[in-house]
Amino acid sequence: MTDAPPVDLTTGVADLAAALVDIPSQSHHEGPLADAVEAALAGCAHLTVTRHGNTVVARTLLGRSERVLIGGHLDTVPEHGNLPHHVEAGMLFGLGACDMKGGVAVALSLAASERAPVRDVTYVFYECEEVASEFNGLQALADSHPELLEADLAILMEPSNAGIEAGCQGTVRVEVATTGRRAHSARSWLGDNAIHAASGVLDRLADYRPRRPVIDGLEYREGLSAVGIRGGVAGNVIPDECVVTVNYRFAPDRSVDEALAHVAEVFDGFAMTVVDQAPGALPGLDRPATADFVSAVGEMPRPKFGWTDVARFSALGVPAINFGPGDPALAHTRDEHVPVEQLDSCLARMRAWLRG
Amino acid sequence: MTDAPPVDLTTGVADLAAALVDIPSQSHHEGPLADAVEAALAGCAHLTVTRHGNTVVARTLLGRSERVLIGGHLDTVPEHGNLPHHVEAGMLFGLGACDMKGGVAVALSLAASERAPVRDVTYVFYECEEVASEFNGLQALADSHPELLEADLAILMEPSNAGIEAGCQGTVRVEVATTGRRAHSARSWLGDNAIHAASGVLDRLADYRPRRPVIDGLEYREGLSAVGIRGGVAGNVIPDECVVTVNYRFAPDRSVDEALAHVAEVFDGFAMTVVDQAPGALPGLDRPATADFVSAVGEMPRPKFGWTDVARFSALGVPAINFGPGDPALAHTRDEHVPVEQLDSCLARMRAWLRG
Repeated sequence: MTDAPPVDLTTGVADLAAALVDIPSQSHHEGPLADAVEAALAGCAHLTVTRHGNTVVARTLLGRSERVLIGGHLDTVPEHGNLPHHVEAGMLFGLGACDMKGGVAVALSLAASERAPVRDVTYVFYECEEVASEFNGLQALADSHPELLEADLAILMEPSNAGIEAGCQGTVRVEVATTGRRAHSARSWLGDNAIHAASGVLDRLADYRPRRPVIDGLEYREGLSAVGIRGGVAGNVIPDECVVTVNYRFAPDRSVDEALAHVAEVFDGFAMTVVDQAPGALPGLDRPATADFVSAVGEMPRPKFGWTDVARFSALGVPAINFGPGDPALAHTRDEHVPVEQLDSCLARMRAWLRG
Repeated sequence: MTDAPPVDLTTGVADLAAALVDIPSQSHHEGPLADAVEAALAGCAHLTVTRHGNTVVARTLLGRSERVLIGGHLDTVPEHGNLPHHVEAGMLFGLGACDMKGGVAVALSLAASERAPVRDVTYVFYECEEVASEFNGLQALADSHPELLEADLAILMEPSNAGIEAGCQGTVRVEVATTGRRAHSARSWLGDNAIHAASGVLDRLADYRPRRPVIDGLEYREGLSAVGIRGGVAGNVIPDECVVTVNYRFAPDRSVDEALAHVAEVFDGFAMTVVDQAPGALPGLDRPATADFVSAVGEMPRPKFGWTDVARFSALGVPAINFGPGDPALAHTRDEHVPVEQLDSCLARMRAWLRG
């Protein structure tokens, strides 16, 4: 792996976002991007910068009465024929443009330019958000340096179409397995085909009708999806195991335990193993800090479907909302992109709010 | 990889089979076993030994009016917690004991002991029978040295319960794929889940009723089986592709083209790619050389369900039958084994036939 080129935080936010897209940073491989971010922030005399794995924290220490945390993850899902970036019709295309190097570019621009914000700011750029939560850089920071995450409000710049998205859905990931008995495929009747048995699992998934509960006036929307399947021993062997990895995204009126009980009910009769879990977060629009930001930015909150680290802040007792550029529906798609206009608009409104 | 220990061909056939089991030889990794076999045969002055990749050929050149080919493959399917060998209640257990190191041990014992057979003999010990036919060592030999395969009759010592199995079923392997559209799994309704779509493929497999046609008085038995499935991009991405590998074993009244047309009909509406194919072989019990061997061994032929290289000889115009120790139903199972009594019985009858 070669070093990434230096990142210039004084360039326009769209150029900065484009430069970030062109530094590959698939989960577990954020090193070069974290290096570039750390080096750029270290050049800002008004910031105190620390590094924790591939997570970079930069703080103002101005003794303000309030502190706001502005965060974004550095990692992306795997490349999908969408590197390097390109700009077309006012849109920046490329891996991570939407989720969430656009938001990271806004936060980095703020970090460099806002030398004397009316609120102290903690900027957090972290690793491994797109993989199992055991690897999540924000959680690692909460475990090792919880004082760095103390704040009156956390704003995660995850894509939210430059509007405010409140709360977030939870997520559990389970493996549903079928078993059978191996045999030579030339005498298939002597075996018991675990892949054929998995038709029962896939049928339940295909037939599933997800909930759409309303919470604090916001309609959430659940999903139960196979995200992986594997089975097979050799080209002439009846397979004795098939494993379907299923991801359940659930509205924040359900706890993780309730979500797991529901999934267990859906796959009743099949063996199930939990591989990952993270609770949702209720919208919390009645919290003072949240209400204040909502009022200042002048946007009607919408429900957040994706799981984001607002749930982690929620668990730490820090009110948190999502506010960032890009359409969340484009996240993880091959042609994900972010409107340059939203980069500018998010930056302008955050800047105005930080300037009081 | 370390060298295998020397193989002693003068030991009893059961001890020899046990020694062969304990030299791992998964397909594509037959080198150490081929080395041991080649070295052992090179010590027999009455044999002319040649090596072709990991295939070893040993011939008598006595100028007899007839030549018989006795063959077996050196490779096994992957290990499955069944190494090293053990002997229990007169059975030799272990990876490949049944398919087909038992048969190879019989052939090696004959090669060493029969210095003046009434028929010239070509012994062929070859690589890569358990994987796609493009790698098959016998086919490689047919392509590079077809003269080495000339014979009046070929006897493959594949497991046939020490009886004669005639003809063999054909095999085709195809990949049946579903496609979809990626999206973040938190907004699954924006994607199109290719794994869920594969429920249609698995349902057709689970519902399939195979044919059991009767040919030359022998009842064959077909099978259509998933032998592999794969799909998934990341734990939070709706997958846009799922691939099911399907193996169709078909009776020898169907050609490869007819078999493929049938599979295409079963999976009508899904994309299908052919990855491997091999024709079956009709029983051919009316061929003089086959009838002669059947009469000498004194066994009623049965149909061969598994594909074996008799089909390759059939295509070369050489009559071929399966005759070897071990229950073919145990092939590729964790507890595959071979009765010591069948090793002895096959050896004794082959020896008697070669002595005239």
